[in-house]
Amino acid sequence: MTHDTTQSTKPRVVLLGLGAMGSALARTWLAAGHPVTVWNRTASRAEPLRALGADVAVTAAEAVASGELVVTCLFDDASVGEALAGTDLDGRDLVELTTGTPDQADARAEWARQRGARFLSGGIMAIPPMVGVPEAGGYVFYSGTREVLTEHEATLAVPLGTRWAGARPGAAALYDIALLSAMNGLFAGVTHAFALVRDEEMPLKEFSGLLVSWLNAMASTAGSMAEQIESGDYTRDVVANLPMLVSGNRTLEAAAREQGVDYRLLSPYSELLEERLAQGFDEEGGTGALELLVKRP
Amino acid sequence: MTHDTTQSTKPRVVLLGLGAMGSALARTWLAAGHPVTVWNRTASRAEPLRALGADVAVTAAEAVASGELVVTCLFDDASVGEALAGTDLDGRDLVELTTGTPDQADARAEWARQRGARFLSGGIMAIPPMVGVPEAGGYVFYSGTREVLTEHEATLAVPLGTRWAGARPGAAALYDIALLSAMNGLFAGVTHAFALVRDEEMPLKEFSGLLVSWLNAMASTAGSMAEQIESGDYTRDVVANLPMLVSGNRTLEAAAREQGVDYRLLSPYSELLEERLAQGFDEEGGTGALELLVKRP
Ligand SMILES: NC(=O)c1ccc[n+]([C@@H]2O[C@H](COP(=O)([O-])OP(=O)(O)OC[C@H]3O[C@@H](n4cnc5c(N)ncnc54)[C@H](OP(=O)(O)O)[C@@H]3O)[C@@H](O)[C@H]2O)c1
Ligand SMILES: NC(=O)c1ccc[n+]([C@@H]2O[C@H](COP(=O)([O-])OP(=O)(O)OC[C@H]3O[C@@H](n4cnc5c(N)ncnc54)[C@H](OP(=O)(O)O)[C@@H]3O)[C@@H](O)[C@H]2O)c1
Repeated sequence: MTHDTTQSTKPRVVLLGLGAMGSALARTWLAAGHPVTVWNRTASRAEPLRALGADVAVTAAEAVASGELVVTCLFDDASVGEALAGTDLDGRDLVELTTGTPDQADARAEWARQRGARFLSGGIMAIPPMVGVPEAGGYVFYSGTREVLTEHEATLAVPLGTRWAGARPGAAALYDIALLSAMNGLFAGVTHAFALVRDEEMPLKEFSGLLVSWLNAMASTAGSMAEQIESGDYTRDVVANLPMLVSGNRTLEAAAREQGVDYRLLSPYSELLEERLAQGFDEEGGTGALELLVKRP
Repeated sequence: MTHDTTQSTKPRVVLLGLGAMGSALARTWLAAGHPVTVWNRTASRAEPLRALGADVAVTAAEAVASGELVVTCLFDDASVGEALAGTDLDGRDLVELTTGTPDQADARAEWARQRGARFLSGGIMAIPPMVGVPEAGGYVFYSGTREVLTEHEATLAVPLGTRWAGARPGAAALYDIALLSAMNGLFAGVTHAFALVRDEEMPLKEFSGLLVSWLNAMASTAGSMAEQIESGDYTRDVVANLPMLVSGNRTLEAAAREQGVDYRLLSPYSELLEERLAQGFDEEGGTGALELLVKRP
């Protein structure tokens, strides 16, 4: 490993993990003038970053030894454990950007504490092309030891900004996961929609434009859903009631059958609304069905 | 039924069905200065429109007799058949805004032709609060007899604008259904997301703001999905590959379990991606899984 010989006033970032996301993060810190030490299990992925001025460590231990702020962006929580196994974290600030569950983040925080490191968990609300492009939106939820965020705010804000999620280490992961879950629902719906119209006349590119504006309009109703949930009154501001929604869903299912498209991505939501309607909530829209998902202790 | 005694230069609209959507449509035509005849099975729902200047018909037959342009906005295709059963459609332009399947629209077009009516099918891409509010977006797909749209364009455009979908009567319904299907996926994901975070610290209203901007960013990737599908190359411009997506989905499922939230709305999409990955498409993102939904003859 060769250290940069020029002196930088900006703090060094030690980054473990150079997948699509880790590489994008590294590029923004380098572009912002931070000295960056990188390490990746498969060494070849570090070469493009070396060309951009990164210091490439041969082992994770060597990387961790090179700076106070250690950022991980690996495959999953288990790979974080493996990658950090032989490293000395004492006195380090460990910032974990690997997607994991809230409970994994809570456990990883305790694990870091036992090794003398302060711990901050981050949940990335973006895809690699958005990193370092402020107008593309996106940011990172942070939770855990707030001082770590406060002290490294200027550095951590470089790729995607920051947003505080709470003192519980798992909070960032939970909000991250909630957003990714909503995205999966969106992608399931979009995949089904494309399957329905793929072989029709309108070019898919034209259809996708309509789809995007329609979905933006529909997503904007999440604010009114939030108000319903907080009020506990699911009959408030209902624009389409359950009998209408259930009837409409039968039409969606019939149309899928006609077009030769498997309805399986959407059937659980249809069934959930039917279940809620069968319980007698005729005056509600779709939001009240949330009650069927939450298992009360 | 009392006819308006003032003369209007704008064409009369005959509207059958005064549910949430039909009532919203009627209000915009009245506000735009069109004479409007309304009929609804349950007569009381016509009273607010009478107060706004509508002519209220006692029977559907009486309504249909009062004007050339007959618009239906009823519960489903079967209710259209019931409502129009005793009416004389000869020489009428029947514009069907009731949501149905593409095959139902095709059949309804033939049914109308046999009764001497020209037929236009419309698929409404909006919810009632958007009707008559241009900046709220939304519009209506039309398909079938294009002359009906051309001749009544100025009238039909009043509530939500128009967009031509094709000569096949069922085309409007199909595009409508594709958008509604995508919306159901979105709502399934949003419902799951709210279930995950409902009992956490961040106010749901604040979370919903984040959710909306995140979903808008994610929806915008539909254009690149369209390009992948049209090119047939699902490995093109992949930002997260299937192994990463599948691993991430396992995290989403584990987190749902931790939070006591049923994963059923999202499991079919997770399973679809696992199935595609098991077929060996490691280099793809999520879009290629569409192939598993389409049943080839
Ligand atoms: N990509 C996105 O859109 C996105 C968005 C938000 C969050 N994230 C999260 O960011 C993290 C990284 O994502 P990515 O897209 O960069 O993933 P990726 O391209 O698949 O890269 C995975 C990285 O993890 C490393 N790795 C895997 N197992 C390891 C092990 N046992 N020990 C050491 N290193 C290991 C890989 O090293 P090798 O090169 O040696 O395989 C590689 O550097 C994930 O937790 C992901 O959920 C990604
Ligand atoms: N609301 C939306 O967000 C929305 C969005 C896009 C498209 N649409 C479509 O627009 C249409 C109407 O929706 P809506 O929200 O106005 O529904 P709604 O509020 O439930 O009203 C349903 C209407 O259909 C009538 N009806 C039901 N069965 C009938 C029958 N057998 N004979 C005669 N009339 C009958 C009802 O009359 P009664 O008053 O006598 O019950 C009522 O006027 C549906 O096809 C819907 O899919 C709605």
